[in-house]
Parts: sequence; C-alpha cells; structure tokens
Amino acid sequence: MLAVWLNNGRVSVEKRPKPRPRAGHALIRLLSAGICNTDLELQRGYYGFSGIPGHEFVGEVVASPEPKLLGRRVVGEINLDCGRCEWCRRGLGRHCPHRTTLGIVKHPGVFAEYFTLPVRNLFVVSDRVPTEAAVFTEPIAAACEILEQVRIPKGDRVAVLGGGKLGLLIVQVLRAHGCQVRLFRREDEKSGRYRWVVEATGTADGLRQAVALTEPRGTLILKSTVHGEVPLDTAAVVVNEITLVGSRCGLFPAALRLLRQGKIRTDDMISARYPLAEAPAAFEKAAHKGVLKVLLVP
Amino acid sequence: MLAVWLNNGRVSVEKRPKPRPRAGHALIRLLSAGICNTDLELQRGYYGFSGIPGHEFVGEVVASPEPKLLGRRVVGEINLDCGRCEWCRRGLGRHCPHRTTLGIVKHPGVFAEYFTLPVRNLFVVSDRVPTEAAVFTEPIAAACEILEQVRIPKGDRVAVLGGGKLGLLIVQVLRAHGCQVRLFRREDEKSGRYRWVVEATGTADGLRQAVALTEPRGTLILKSTVHGEVPLDTAAVVVNEITLVGSRCGLFPAALRLLRQGKIRTDDMISARYPLAEAPAAFEKAAHKGVLKVLLVP
Repeated sequence: MLAVWLNNGRVSVEKRPKPRPRAGHALIRLLSAGICNTDLELQRGYYGFSGIPGHEFVGEVVASPEPKLLGRRVVGEINLDCGRCEWCRRGLGRHCPHRTTLGIVKHPGVFAEYFTLPVRNLFVVSDRVPTEAAVFTEPIAAACEILEQVRIPKGDRVAVLGGGKLGLLIVQVLRAHGCQVRLFRREDEKSGRYRWVVEATGTADGLRQAVALTEPRGTLILKSTVHGEVPLDTAAVVVNEITLVGSRCGLFPAALRLLRQGKIRTDDMISARYPLAEAPAAFEKAAHKGVLKVLLVP
Repeated sequence: MLAVWLNNGRVSVEKRPKPRPRAGHALIRLLSAGICNTDLELQRGYYGFSGIPGHEFVGEVVASPEPKLLGRRVVGEINLDCGRCEWCRRGLGRHCPHRTTLGIVKHPGVFAEYFTLPVRNLFVVSDRVPTEAAVFTEPIAAACEILEQVRIPKGDRVAVLGGGKLGLLIVQVLRAHGCQVRLFRREDEKSGRYRWVVEATGTADGLRQAVALTEPRGTLILKSTVHGEVPLDTAAVVVNEITLVGSRCGLFPAALRLLRQGKIRTDDMISARYPLAEAPAAFEKAAHKGVLKVLLVP
C-alpha cells in the first residue's frame, strides 16, 4: 500500500506492507485525513518521530472482529489505552501511562491507504455528516475538552487567542455552548479583561498576552503547546490568583453530536486537498501562514 | 517615632512623624512584626519601593473610631480595598483594582512604632494566642488560601516543595485539614506523582520539579512568585492536563481559628528577634539561607 513516511524531518511516500490487525483491532481504509500542527511538529523532529504519521481521519472498516462495523464510515480516538489500569478504570484512558498514540507514539498513523485501530476506539459517523466534516472530529473533540474540564456558564464572555485551525473550532464549540466569544487573531489589539481565556496560538507571545487578558481569579485554558520552555510571569499568575488549565484530547461523542446537529462549520476551513502520493507538497502547503486544514486523500 | 526606611535597596532607621489616622482608620502601636520574603524582594528593589515596609504584625490599638478596639491586640488584613467596586461586593477585596497594600503599595508599613489601618481590616487576637504566634497570622492566612481556592479531600496525599517559612506553614495548615503531606526540601530527591502539589520555593527549579511531580489531571498550586519570567514546559502542562492555580493572600479568620486551636506551631520557626533600631542587621539576618522568621520589636 501507499504510505507517508516521516524520518529526520523528511516526508516521503513509500510502498509499505498493508498492516495486519492485532486481536481486537479493525483494519481501516482511509477516506480522508487531516494534517494537524502536531504532524508539522513531528516533521520538525521535535519528538524524534520516525514512521507513518497522521491521526485525524475518516475511514471505512474493511476487516473487524465486530461484524457490524464492516463497511461503516468511522472516526477514531487516537489514544490506545491499556483498558486495565487505574486511569482507564476512571474513564481517563487518554492519560493511561501505558498508552500508545495513533501516528504519534508507537502506533502507525493514518497517512496511508490502510491502518489499524482497536475496535473500541472507533465511532461510526452518521450518514448526515459528510466525510470532509467528520475528518474534523478529533480537533473538535479537543475543543470540547475545555467544557469537560471547566464549567463555563452559558452566556459568559470568553476570549480565544489564535485564529488557526484549533482556535476557529474552539470559537464555534464555545458559541454552540452559549458563550459570548471574542476571537483575537495575531494582529488584533489585545485589550479588556476576561474571566475565561483560551490560548490557542502555540506561541510564547500568545501565552504572555493570554495571562494579561485574564482577570483576577479568572481561568486561562492552555490548548496549544509551545515547543521547549516558555517564559511565564508567575508573579502575574500568583498575584491575580489566575488558574491555568492544560487541555489536550477530548471525547469523541460530544464532537460527533455537534457535527450531527450542524453546529460546526468546517467547509470554509479546508484550504487544500492532496492525494497521498503528493504528501510532501501537502506538508509544505500546511506549514504556510494563513493556511488552515490540508487534507490527504487516497 | 522610630521607623524603618527602605530606599534604593538601603535599609535605614529614621525618626519620622507619628502617622495621623484618616477617617475610619485606627492608630496602632507595634508589638511584634515579621520580616517576609516580600520585604526582602522590596529591598532588592524589584518593585521600586521607597518608604516604610512591613505587613506582618501584631499591634495594640491606641486610637480608633470604634472604641471597643481600644487597648486590644490586633492583626490586620494587608489589602486596603475601596469597599465599593464589583470585586469588593463579591467579597474579593484582595483583588480590588483600587486597593493599596500595607507596606507594599502606597500605604506605609508596620516596621515602625506606630502605623494605621482601616478599622474594618482589623481582627482582635484571642487572649489564648501569644503575640509571637499571632504575628504569623498573615502567612498562615496565605497558606489557608489554598483551601479557599481548591477542594482537597481530607486524607489526600499532597506534596509541598519548599522548606522555607511559607512552606512549613502550608504543611501544618494542610495537615490540620487532614491531608497526608510530604514536604520536599531543596536537597530532597523529588520522586513520586501527586494529585496535589504546592510550589513554595520561589525558584524556577522548584516550579520545574513541581510540574514533574504533578500527576495527569492533577493540580499544582503556585504559592510563591519568582522574580522575572520563569521558563515553563507548557507541553507537560497541556499533555498531562495539569491545572496550575496562582494563590496569594488569604482570609484571616481561618488562620486565627487554627492559632486558637493550637493547630499551628510557630515557636520553632522564629530564628531571631531584633529591635526596630537594628533593622538593617535584622534584614541581613533574614536573607541568610536556613534562617526562618526574623521578628522586629519596638
């Protein structure tokens, strides 16, 4: 099969053997995949990654120990947890210390014609949701994670910093929840004070501005990581008693519900589509400023 | 009267006019005062402070618009709020944007024979509590603030980093609450993972170690500020979905209750006593490694 291969920051397309699913795993044929900032960071060599990247996908199940999944369109939770430890028992498999992560840590990713995932990671996509909307399920779930972690009352004002892919989805998820959301893009003047602030720029400057925008006793949700260490003014955090909440992957059902209800617009977030065979060009495109989602199709 | 004067990092003792209390303020005679790390930071010139420092005190009320306070031993909330804004109405005068702060921001401090504070900032000290215990009320209140901000279940394990004055009080306050507290001093090997971690070292290293000690979805309370910006590994915070809570001043009643109940031992935390006239030597002593509380007496 055709697969994208990442090694030492070099993206190539190779012929690889079709994966053989382990017990409990399904074999999935790719329909559409999204390039995420994490993929670009893997390319930059931040995590010593070598292998098939990719974790945002919609696929068709072609082999499965659960026959009812055969032929269905699915999306999938990217963390492969052990299912047995204390974290998994608490429903927090996303923090399972034994987990591998699709296309990121020790489990081959989805930028390939075929890939595998445990059946219990899969969610069937409703016929009402087009493939090119469902491919956003994983980042929408990451946006929904904010509301899993902190209780933002409907009607509250929220500032979101970062007009990238994740920032735009966060704005929509919070609006669907009933918040009054103000999006601050890089070029916007950052003023006012907010009880709720979401940092989604992935830059040290963004973090600094986000702290300054948070009112005393307010909450700042960190949705994006910055590579390496970031300078933080702890005095501002302590004196104003600000709460910072790190926030990562979320649960898929909430994201799929929003997609079914038509609450999230994704069509205007797709900047380009490339066949797998042109993955190097797709990665290059995705890294350009102002480019939003770049999709890979088989 | 005799007063300590701080200017450009130089501590001197001067003769100053006895202050005349404004409307609603009491005139207080100093009985005992504590030198805090913030005072040492003021001395280092971090905040451009010039004036009489000092905010930890026990005093005797010698003039007051409320006659029942006359002759009583008191301690006092250090934030002088406006009493009228939204923050004050919410009971969060400690965050009043119009506040001044005793011995720190625009209100002369307590390292003097006499000083003033609004009557509504004062709390009478029970006869059961010795002056040299009550002088710890303000930092004990700061330790109690942790339990105002986050709900730590009794019996939970908590790691406290920092064997200084504040760290030792935090350990006692959390033990009084029923927590199983493990104190990590600078020289101790930091291992294990905790759902609750308190950073009270005031160092960049301490913050780094505190993040590493916090388990996924755990809470790290920042009790001490580090001057300037501190490098923070946001990836660890985001991936492990850690919550960081900045925590500063606390409410006095909780601290006074713990003192009345004899739940906090302070006598072994007093390293030295100096008369006001020897304030320069007292400041020098307080800055030595391993020295805990240095008291100033009239």
